[in-house]
Amino acid sequence: MKTVKNAVGREIPLELDNRTLVPYKGAFGHRPPASYIGAPTGWIKPGEKKLLDSIEDAIKKCKLQDGMTISFNHHLRNGDFVVNNVLDIISDMGIKNLRLAPSALFPVHEPLIEHIKNGVIDRIEGSMNGPVGNFVSHGGLPHPAILRSHGARVRAIRVGEIPIDLAFIAAPAADSYGNANGVLGKNVCGSLGYSMVDMVLARKSIVITDNLVPYPCIPMSIKQQYVDYVVEVDSIGDNMKIVSGTTKVTTDPNRLGIAESAANVIKYSGVYRDGMSYQAGAGGISLATTKMLGEFLEEDKYCCRFIDGGVTQHVVDILEKGLCKYILDGQSFDVSSVESLLNNPKHIEISPDFYANIHNKGCLVNVLDSAVLGATEVDVDFNVNVNTHSDGRLLHGIGGHQDVCAGSDLTIITCPVYRKTNPIVMDSVTTITTPGEVVDVIVTDHGVAVNPKRKDLLNNLKDSPVNLITIDELRDIAYDATGGKQELHVKDDIICLIQWRDGTVIDTVRQVEDE
Amino acid sequence: MKTVKNAVGREIPLELDNRTLVPYKGAFGHRPPASYIGAPTGWIKPGEKKLLDSIEDAIKKCKLQDGMTISFNHHLRNGDFVVNNVLDIISDMGIKNLRLAPSALFPVHEPLIEHIKNGVIDRIEGSMNGPVGNFVSHGGLPHPAILRSHGARVRAIRVGEIPIDLAFIAAPAADSYGNANGVLGKNVCGSLGYSMVDMVLARKSIVITDNLVPYPCIPMSIKQQYVDYVVEVDSIGDNMKIVSGTTKVTTDPNRLGIAESAANVIKYSGVYRDGMSYQAGAGGISLATTKMLGEFLEEDKYCCRFIDGGVTQHVVDILEKGLCKYILDGQSFDVSSVESLLNNPKHIEISPDFYANIHNKGCLVNVLDSAVLGATEVDVDFNVNVNTHSDGRLLHGIGGHQDVCAGSDLTIITCPVYRKTNPIVMDSVTTITTPGEVVDVIVTDHGVAVNPKRKDLLNNLKDSPVNLITIDELRDIAYDATGGKQELHVKDDIICLIQWRDGTVIDTVRQVEDE
Repeated sequence: MKTVKNAVGREIPLELDNRTLVPYKGAFGHRPPASYIGAPTGWIKPGEKKLLDSIEDAIKKCKLQDGMTISFNHHLRNGDFVVNNVLDIISDMGIKNLRLAPSALFPVHEPLIEHIKNGVIDRIEGSMNGPVGNFVSHGGLPHPAILRSHGARVRAIRVGEIPIDLAFIAAPAADSYGNANGVLGKNVCGSLGYSMVDMVLARKSIVITDNLVPYPCIPMSIKQQYVDYVVEVDSIGDNMKIVSGTTKVTTDPNRLGIAESAANVIKYSGVYRDGMSYQAGAGGISLATTKMLGEFLEEDKYCCRFIDGGVTQHVVDILEKGLCKYILDGQSFDVSSVESLLNNPKHIEISPDFYANIHNKGCLVNVLDSAVLGATEVDVDFNVNVNTHSDGRLLHGIGGHQDVCAGSDLTIITCPVYRKTNPIVMDSVTTITTPGEVVDVIVTDHGVAVNPKRKDLLNNLKDSPVNLITIDELRDIAYDATGGKQELHVKDDIICLIQWRDGTVIDTVRQVEDE
Repeated sequence: MKTVKNAVGREIPLELDNRTLVPYKGAFGHRPPASYIGAPTGWIKPGEKKLLDSIEDAIKKCKLQDGMTISFNHHLRNGDFVVNNVLDIISDMGIKNLRLAPSALFPVHEPLIEHIKNGVIDRIEGSMNGPVGNFVSHGGLPHPAILRSHGARVRAIRVGEIPIDLAFIAAPAADSYGNANGVLGKNVCGSLGYSMVDMVLARKSIVITDNLVPYPCIPMSIKQQYVDYVVEVDSIGDNMKIVSGTTKVTTDPNRLGIAESAANVIKYSGVYRDGMSYQAGAGGISLATTKMLGEFLEEDKYCCRFIDGGVTQHVVDILEKGLCKYILDGQSFDVSSVESLLNNPKHIEISPDFYANIHNKGCLVNVLDSAVLGATEVDVDFNVNVNTHSDGRLLHGIGGHQDVCAGSDLTIITCPVYRKTNPIVMDSVTTITTPGEVVDVIVTDHGVAVNPKRKDLLNNLKDSPVNLITIDELRDIAYDATGGKQELHVKDDIICLIQWRDGTVIDTVRQVEDE
């Protein structure tokens, strides 16, 4: 296997699994083709119905065949019933060797493992959080998986790299002609942004709802002119499970300290002003930072132009206090924030194409002033890993991490220096998700390290309450406390490619050895 | 020139002006290709600006060259300043032989005639209301023009039949990154629906605004990820002129009688019920019909599921009285209805792709119960002409006429039987805009003629207050009063093709002889 070293020093094969790979060339180094692919046409006469009796009927009408590509949206996150339900049906229909291209998978999708074993699914391109990632890490999938950021998934679908034959769109409300949204019904999940590109470009698309409403279903996040069929089911999921444990503000003093430092970094960085913009993560530290930033804004009578990202009630509170003008909502991280999306005209649903696609004519992250994100590992070159655990297992997706870091003027990564016996700050991360060239500040419980190329930030922060330290010092603290990084037990086989947002390969993930 | 007779009996050349033409095959007879064309990609880094100092700068950056295609939106209708302004600039830049693909032109665009004469514009594909149509009728344009309905224009752009190189989007509000809408600022014009397909598929697009607002411009009818440049100008137009004289309810007793008959046809047709849907035209008779239908609904405590179309304050009144659940707004016909679009979440902006494109997966007109439209001429086969006057001059566009007639369950055409010395009902219309196979009822001041193929309607109306008459009888009344149809003085040269909504040619328009 011929490999070359990419722009962050990782060895990347030039070909794998009958695909030509392009090694990462730098954050903005890879030019797109001139055009995206076009949407399918349609030809439906007045009076023809789209509402069908069953998912099986709809799949038959869409002519799903062996080897094709199917997609799903992950808005119901760990409460989603649709992926498992549809895969059981497809399995019963005897269809094999499908490529699965979900926007993300969660622990609830563990039954998918059986459908990989029985040959229904042989490829996955999409985030795999938890058990499926673990299974793939142990070599369970016949072909290497591909992880992409939110923006990169849209880009890949739009350029035809993921040719979706059939999209399944789980929708909390829909009418019989295919208009749908995520803000009405018993299983509201908020923004349906992730489905928008699937809706437009999939050869065929099926809306699956447990809340069929009279025409027209308003708002129309999903629009009839892109939808082939509609199926009503008893339940698309349990929306209480879109909230994960991490959407609570941390109460741990160590983590609160990190949040306070991060808030102070924003305040003294130079971007803090009336009219600034901010992206909120959903982790406990990010939420605490958001809360503290809100207090700063209130004190100074400042108002953010917008806050974007995964949205929680904490962000809605900031909007309602008048501390931000608009919420641009790509994903709801709790059910209580959905009511705001439904009723507040200043709370706007956005698609990941709008938000994060590097190869459109200007995505939201390009104009973002500041963002706070997490990390599983960071290294002395400011590279960040959010995908693999210390033992090398692939347990998390990329989310918007790459997109936000590359776009935002000020990118802050928050993490402890070490967790139990594992260093978090290290010489070289196991997997590079996001390259150090787009990471500005690492905020830890032992001080704040600024990327040396951001001399402006170092200068702004030097007389602030922020406790500056070098990244090498943080690594030393981590290694002293833990004895250094554990040796990885991995094989040569590549089980996953980590794509950069432009389609190049920034890193590969190897198969872990069985315990 | 080899011609064949199309499905409505008109002789259509198989080739014209280096284009292969497909003769009309029936309302739903022509299958689309499998796919539409794709949108252009973009590649813009954080920090790069889109706001430029002048339209000329923007045109240069978009590399407009001789022979290319440019497009404009017509939301400011007869109050638009942008088309004339841009064409003057392009003329000064020395660029020639452009194809103009506006959504429509109005009398205000008369100066365009000079730019045809001086060679800046040599082709027009788009509606030409008034002086430009007259000029083209006299053979002023080097190449035959093409008229398309709202839905057909979207279809043509999406299949690549109109390859737009540069779209100019006049927007009453925009931010510096290209998000824009029609509901904020001194020149509000409401829905920006017509621009949506240009925005997505034009190789380059420029938003021109007289109201630059802080980022983000909300609502985002036009989205940044499709916009290349933004230019601020003193004024994009005079929005008082989006109201034409025809948006007042008629007070003429003859026309009020027609409106009453039309409202009664709806009431007794079989589609009238709680939850029905309705499309409102903007002519005086249509508005009076809408008002009367509103009174019926109120009396019966019925509520329409939706009213769509060009929207006026009269329709907003119906919404606010609770007599309809939603307005689906493709175009604003007065300024007062714009406030409702801005503030009422039940008043929704729609695109013509959603509304009228025959070759998507299901447009709005397909589910429409009833519509009331006008005509310049109708004939005994129920064919309708809305494009040419009795003297053969091309003075009007198609609008949504074809789309609505083909989609709506009940299509009503209202017109007097004759106007002064001209018969309106005749043996054969000068130009077939909309074929009789999709027209159900002709409502006139001398009675109501039902298309014989709608036996269900004839049956439902026979015991109603509606005064039924045959179409032949109406023609006889018209001919008796006027002496019959005037002889047309036209040459052999085809100056315009009338496209059916699927891209086939339903009729041609000939050059008129000079007086």
